[in-house]
Amino acid sequence: MSLTKAHTHPKPKIPFKLVKKELKEVEAQILDQVHAFDPSVAPYVDYICNTSGKRIRPILAILAGGATGGVTPAHIKIGVILELIHMSTLVHDDIIDGADTRRKVPTANAKWGNGMAVLLGDALFSHSLHLATDFDDISICRKVGHASREVCQGEVMQTQRRFDLTLTKEDYFHIIEMKTGALFAAATAIAASLSGASQETEDLLYQYGLKLGTAYQIYDDCLDLVGSEAQVGKTLRTDLEKGKLTLPLLNLLEKADPAQREKLNKRIIEQQPLDLPVIIGIAEYEGSVESSLDTATSILDEARDNLLVLEASPWRDGLEQVTYYLDDLLNKCRR
Amino acid sequence: MSLTKAHTHPKPKIPFKLVKKELKEVEAQILDQVHAFDPSVAPYVDYICNTSGKRIRPILAILAGGATGGVTPAHIKIGVILELIHMSTLVHDDIIDGADTRRKVPTANAKWGNGMAVLLGDALFSHSLHLATDFDDISICRKVGHASREVCQGEVMQTQRRFDLTLTKEDYFHIIEMKTGALFAAATAIAASLSGASQETEDLLYQYGLKLGTAYQIYDDCLDLVGSEAQVGKTLRTDLEKGKLTLPLLNLLEKADPAQREKLNKRIIEQQPLDLPVIIGIAEYEGSVESSLDTATSILDEARDNLLVLEASPWRDGLEQVTYYLDDLLNKCRR
Repeated sequence: MSLTKAHTHPKPKIPFKLVKKELKEVEAQILDQVHAFDPSVAPYVDYICNTSGKRIRPILAILAGGATGGVTPAHIKIGVILELIHMSTLVHDDIIDGADTRRKVPTANAKWGNGMAVLLGDALFSHSLHLATDFDDISICRKVGHASREVCQGEVMQTQRRFDLTLTKEDYFHIIEMKTGALFAAATAIAASLSGASQETEDLLYQYGLKLGTAYQIYDDCLDLVGSEAQVGKTLRTDLEKGKLTLPLLNLLEKADPAQREKLNKRIIEQQPLDLPVIIGIAEYEGSVESSLDTATSILDEARDNLLVLEASPWRDGLEQVTYYLDDLLNKCRR
Repeated sequence: MSLTKAHTHPKPKIPFKLVKKELKEVEAQILDQVHAFDPSVAPYVDYICNTSGKRIRPILAILAGGATGGVTPAHIKIGVILELIHMSTLVHDDIIDGADTRRKVPTANAKWGNGMAVLLGDALFSHSLHLATDFDDISICRKVGHASREVCQGEVMQTQRRFDLTLTKEDYFHIIEMKTGALFAAATAIAASLSGASQETEDLLYQYGLKLGTAYQIYDDCLDLVGSEAQVGKTLRTDLEKGKLTLPLLNLLEKADPAQREKLNKRIIEQQPLDLPVIIGIAEYEGSVESSLDTATSILDEARDNLLVLEASPWRDGLEQVTYYLDDLLNKCRR
C-alpha cells in the first residue's frame, strides 16, 4: 500500500452522499410510476415499487452522467427505467426460485400467487419499456430494448444450463454478462450517450458497467457459498441445490482429476442428500472460491482502467469508489 | 336480406386470398426472429414461433395499410411485432391456466416447466419491443409500448377480479378492451399512421380495431360456454371454474331476482361440484348468451361504421369482411 495520501484509494463505499439529491429524485419517480397504471392495478405496482433496493443501476447512471458533463433529468430518468426493468425481472425471478421474501417483505408470488406475479412482472416490464419511449432519441429506446433482451436471454440460458456439467467458464461468463452485466453497462453507457459524450467514452463506460456487473455477479455467486445469512439478510446456499454451476464450482471442476471429477459430478447430479457443507469445504480447501474472488478483483481492475477516459471529477471518483466498494466486499469473502 | 347482388354483404370470411403474399412474408419474418437470439436460446424461440396462429393482428395491419394508401414493408413489420407480443402473452397465459396444449402441440410450460416458460415469454416480449425500435419514428414505439402495457394491465385486472361477484359490465368491457382490444386497435391504427393517414382516419381505425377485438373477446367468452370442443379444437368450459365472470354470466346475474342471484352466487363461489351444464342451461334459457351475442353484433355494426372514413378498395372491403366473418361466428353460437 502507498504511504502518501495522494496515492491512497478513494474510500471503498457507494458514494451515497454525492448522489443524495439525485437518488431522492429517483426514489420519488419510482414511487410515482403507479399513476401510469389503472387504479385497480396501481396498488400492486405500489407494493412492488415500495420494496427498496440498493438502486445501484440509477447510482451508476447518475455518476456516469455527472462524469460526462453533468447530471440532467434524463440521467435520472434512465436510472429509473433501468431500475424498473430490474425490479420486474426480480418479480419473475422470485416465482422461479419459489422465494417467499425479498428484503424482508413477502414477494409478489407469496402475496398473490404465481399467476398474478407473472402478470404484474409483465405489466411493470412493459411500462418500463414504454417509459423509455419518452426520450425523443430513438437510439436510447433501442439501447434499453437491447439490454432488456440480453437480461431475459441470460436468464433463459442460466435456467437451461442447470445441472449441466458441460457448462464451461466461457459459458458462465457469457451468461452473467447478459444476465447482470447488460443493465449495469446500459446504465453507464446510456448516461454517457445522453451527455453527448464521444463514442469512445460511451464504449469504455459500457465496458466499465459490463465488468462491474460481471464482478458483482461473481461476488454474489461466491457469497451464496461462503457468506453469512445473518449478515447478508437473504437465504444462501441455494445455487447448487438448483443446479446453478457458478464460478467457484467451475474452478473446482476444472482443477479436479478424473476420479475427483467423478465424485463431484455424482454429488451435484444425484444430490440426495446434497452434502453442501462438504462441497463448500472442498471448494475452499482447493482454493476455488479464492481464485473466483481473484478473478472478480482483476475484472474490477480492468473496469477501473476504463475510467481513465474520463476527466477528473468527484463523479469519476464516485465510479471508482464503487469498484473499491465491491473490492472490499470481495475481500470480506476471503476470511 | 337484400335481393340485389349490389347490396349483399362481402363474404363472411377472413380475406386470406387478398393478403396471401403479405401473410407469407409475415410468416417468414416471424420464423426469422430466431436469428436475433443467442444460439442456445434460439431453439426455444423457434418452437414457440412455429406454433401457427390465425395471425389476425398482422392481417388487420396489412388490410389497414392497404386501405390507407398501400401495403408497405412497415405494415408487415408492425404486424409481425404485434403478433410476437401476442405470442409472448400466450406463453404466460398458458402458465397461468396450466394449459398443456395449444393448437394441438405441447405448450412451453408443458415442455420445459413454468420457470422456463416465464423467462421465454419475457425474452420474446423484450425482443418484440426491441424490434419496434427499428422504426425511426419514435411515436410508433410509443404506441406499441402503450398497447403492450394495456394488454398486461388487462390481464392483471382479469386475474384480480376472479370470483369477484361485484364485477360490473363496465368493468368487464374495460378489461376486455385492454386485454384484447388494445392490440387489435394498435394493428389498425399504427398501420394508418405508417401510411401517413390523417389523425381522424387513425382514430377511427383505432376504434374499429378496439371494437373488433372487443366483439372477438365476447365471442370467445360465449364459445367457452356453448361451443363444441371438437369444432373449436381447444378445451372449453374453463372460465367459470377459474372464476372468470364473462358477459353471459354478468347478463344472467343482472337479470336475476334477489333469490336467483343468491343461488347463482352460491353456485359460482362454492362450486363444489360446479354444476356447469346447469348454469349454462340456465344462462341459455334466460337468453343471457343470446343477448351477449347481440351485444357483440351491435359492436361489430359500429366497427363497420368506422370504416366509412376509408375510400372504397378491396382492402377496405377486407376489413369489412372480417367483421362479417366474426358476425357469422356469432351466429353459429346461436344454434
